[in-house]
Amino acid sequence: MRKSGREISRMATVSKSCERGEEKKEKRDLALTVESLNPRLLDMKYAVRGKVLDIAQDLKKQLASGAALPFSELCSCNIGNPQKLGQVPLKFNREVLALLMMPSLMLSKDSTMFSDAAKTRAKAYLSEIEGGVGAYSMSQGLQIVRKEVASFIAKRDGFPSNPEHIFLTSGASAGVKMIYQALVSGSRKEGIMVPIPQYPLYSALSTLMGAELCGYYLDESSAWTAHLKEMERAYTEATRAHGTSVCAMVVINPGNPTGQCLSEASQRDIVRFCVRHRLVLLADEVYQENVYAKDKRFTSFKRVALAMGHEAADLQLVSFHSISKGFIGECGLRGGYMELHNISDDVIAQFRKLASVSLCPNTIGQVSVGLMVNPPTNDAEYSRQRDGTLASLKRRAEKLAGALNDIDGISCNDAEGAMYLFPKIQLPECVSRIAKEKGYASADEYYCAEVVRSTGIVVVPGSGFKQVRGTFHFRTTFLPPEERIDGFVKVFGDFHRSFLRAHESK
Amino acid sequence: MRKSGREISRMATVSKSCERGEEKKEKRDLALTVESLNPRLLDMKYAVRGKVLDIAQDLKKQLASGAALPFSELCSCNIGNPQKLGQVPLKFNREVLALLMMPSLMLSKDSTMFSDAAKTRAKAYLSEIEGGVGAYSMSQGLQIVRKEVASFIAKRDGFPSNPEHIFLTSGASAGVKMIYQALVSGSRKEGIMVPIPQYPLYSALSTLMGAELCGYYLDESSAWTAHLKEMERAYTEATRAHGTSVCAMVVINPGNPTGQCLSEASQRDIVRFCVRHRLVLLADEVYQENVYAKDKRFTSFKRVALAMGHEAADLQLVSFHSISKGFIGECGLRGGYMELHNISDDVIAQFRKLASVSLCPNTIGQVSVGLMVNPPTNDAEYSRQRDGTLASLKRRAEKLAGALNDIDGISCNDAEGAMYLFPKIQLPECVSRIAKEKGYASADEYYCAEVVRSTGIVVVPGSGFKQVRGTFHFRTTFLPPEERIDGFVKVFGDFHRSFLRAHESK
Repeated sequence: MRKSGREISRMATVSKSCERGEEKKEKRDLALTVESLNPRLLDMKYAVRGKVLDIAQDLKKQLASGAALPFSELCSCNIGNPQKLGQVPLKFNREVLALLMMPSLMLSKDSTMFSDAAKTRAKAYLSEIEGGVGAYSMSQGLQIVRKEVASFIAKRDGFPSNPEHIFLTSGASAGVKMIYQALVSGSRKEGIMVPIPQYPLYSALSTLMGAELCGYYLDESSAWTAHLKEMERAYTEATRAHGTSVCAMVVINPGNPTGQCLSEASQRDIVRFCVRHRLVLLADEVYQENVYAKDKRFTSFKRVALAMGHEAADLQLVSFHSISKGFIGECGLRGGYMELHNISDDVIAQFRKLASVSLCPNTIGQVSVGLMVNPPTNDAEYSRQRDGTLASLKRRAEKLAGALNDIDGISCNDAEGAMYLFPKIQLPECVSRIAKEKGYASADEYYCAEVVRSTGIVVVPGSGFKQVRGTFHFRTTFLPPEERIDGFVKVFGDFHRSFLRAHESK
Repeated sequence: MRKSGREISRMATVSKSCERGEEKKEKRDLALTVESLNPRLLDMKYAVRGKVLDIAQDLKKQLASGAALPFSELCSCNIGNPQKLGQVPLKFNREVLALLMMPSLMLSKDSTMFSDAAKTRAKAYLSEIEGGVGAYSMSQGLQIVRKEVASFIAKRDGFPSNPEHIFLTSGASAGVKMIYQALVSGSRKEGIMVPIPQYPLYSALSTLMGAELCGYYLDESSAWTAHLKEMERAYTEATRAHGTSVCAMVVINPGNPTGQCLSEASQRDIVRFCVRHRLVLLADEVYQENVYAKDKRFTSFKRVALAMGHEAADLQLVSFHSISKGFIGECGLRGGYMELHNISDDVIAQFRKLASVSLCPNTIGQVSVGLMVNPPTNDAEYSRQRDGTLASLKRRAEKLAGALNDIDGISCNDAEGAMYLFPKIQLPECVSRIAKEKGYASADEYYCAEVVRSTGIVVVPGSGFKQVRGTFHFRTTFLPPEERIDGFVKVFGDFHRSFLRAHESK
């Protein structure tokens, strides 16, 4: 085949760079290079799995190959991944899922393997799921599960819920992604209000889709409260100063990474704010089962809005839930749902079309949502597992917050809910400079990199969640098993003191 | 609370519209309406689950409520969903998955439930999957499975494969979506070449992400061949006439909806074309196990390119595979992989970051990919299921194509591979006009709507896949059970003749 002129000139480029000893792929004239990628992807950051995790993975490989390190194993506190840290899956749920995977087990001669309740539930699913779990479901999700979700919401809130307004998703993240895709064109200066500190999903999607992230700061000195005045400031700054067309507002309740559980009064303020400014309220309520503070309880935004009556009649709300958190922790199975409140049928039809491009969420995750919202009744083993997990999380949260507060230079709000602490760290001024010299994005990224190198504990730098300028934090889960918390605290305190000593005189 | 001026003016709008009796939500001043949605989402079409399916779902409800229709059940030939139409899942695979879901089953006293091979495999996975299937995996996918995929590819192609270049995904669609997101910014006039007819995923993603769909027509009269001349025409038209910056080219082999299996000579042409024009080749190879024509066999683009040597050294390739097709048909479990060939590590790092925003693909789908690429050896039951399914698909393909060709006014290429036939239908001229009057997007959408209303058979209009202007087609799977194919053909023939009679005199 004859070579075109362009082809010959490209080959010349390749051989020239070879002559200069620069035989790297990037030097060749390839279509797909970092430079040719979507610039928004390049700009996007996702801290929970960022640089510190890369270091951790490298250390893990070193450990596996027998290297002598100051620790014998890593402790992954960077992500809410309970089963990786030893939380046992709920027996009832796994029984039902195993039966769906292999219905012939229903006929097992070994009658001790499955409870009757699990068999009954599995049969109920199988009779409704055409083709079983190996067939595509409707794109919006299995109707039997959407009905279970609607019953759960109605019972929880005391207001009706419609299965046609519920979408099953591959985890809450997939739902949030879908909403961003539906709202944001990337060419109309759309803005989405997001609490700071925030869960990095929101900043990542904003960058990727081309939305303005309009941050409103939570007040660390008053237990991470969202003050109405601050929300108004953020809104005004976005709309007036930047000409942004703000279309939605994210609230994470209980908070991630901040752990606060909103009061109903505060929720009403938020609802009024959204109605006043015509913002769709995106309520990330995935930690609704994880409330530990004695005087707090979770109330859904839907319940708050409907109880407000006429005043909130125009509120449009999307609320997200997930099987990855709570006391279930089935992160790997990827299941969640979102409920659309006060959103018209023709908009829902567009969401349905968007869902159909991905065909359907995985059926095992879908059924797991059903099992979450419709737990077995009178199942002592289930109750024991649930109560045990939640009580243990509460003890670990309190113990870890207390111990971190005992370390000089670290201060930490209590976790009223969720699975995280977000302690503030006082760092000597030189740390920012040294971090920069060493190629880190921030002082707390450097700090967290040193944490994992010295202790094997993986935590996430506060900068990944955004924070008040000049302050430094890290996020840690409190998921390590209880017997390891004491060791965790001791090792962390020792590290912190030696880090400060090493940087004091510089 | 005092009302702001804007709030009062909005309430006035609401009450004014109430006075005019227009109390519809859309008339209120809400944030989220069809008008405020991302315009690209509104423009997006997704035919496989479009209007005809809506009609089908309505008919299904009517049947359920006892309505008398000309048929007693629907026959879903709109989508490759084998288990919904009775295909039985592979026993070995489901045993392993059930064991992963509930490892205690390993200790079952009923030793007949699981084969030793399934137990051994489940143990191997469990020993490598930290925290079990309920824990998040690495975002790129479980390493043990990526190693299995790399071994499979190396053995299939005779060239090495690197697990670090493999991403596990929630089905092939999720992989394609990721690549579109990485390539297309939506603001640089990016174009992606797509075969016409095409699988609607590609047109839908092009619209949603803002890429130009640069169609190259397959030649129906020569068994849907992709002619080099036509590819050049499409490329030149896109770049010269429209100023599009074409960055990638999709090839679906075996074809969907067209069923052709490319010759290696044709594949080499495509590789040269991509190298010449610096296009990333996106090879949709999900039907690689589904080849029925005696003189054809599947060869991967990676093998073709590597066998070409220096000439194809600059080819960049992403190839996609899925657990939903082949003889496995585990659509609902959502699993797939993509392999990146000749793509630099820093680009791969960006893909990894993108994957991390979704945390990880579901672990059950991931393991199912491992089971697909690393089947049990010497398992008679497995071989029987595999060979039986493939032989039956081949018989059904031949029978259905033959019978459709026997109907006057329908002509149909053989399915050399995949799961679909894409017959051409001759329609009287008046049909286009009548379709338009009745609110259909095309004559074949009208035709397919009448098909389902008269027969209960759900097929997809050719217009959803794009086709040569003035021609009409529909896509049907050949997945109904063999014993139903005769009935299918008779009913379809009767419908077609009566449709033609009804429209002849108009």
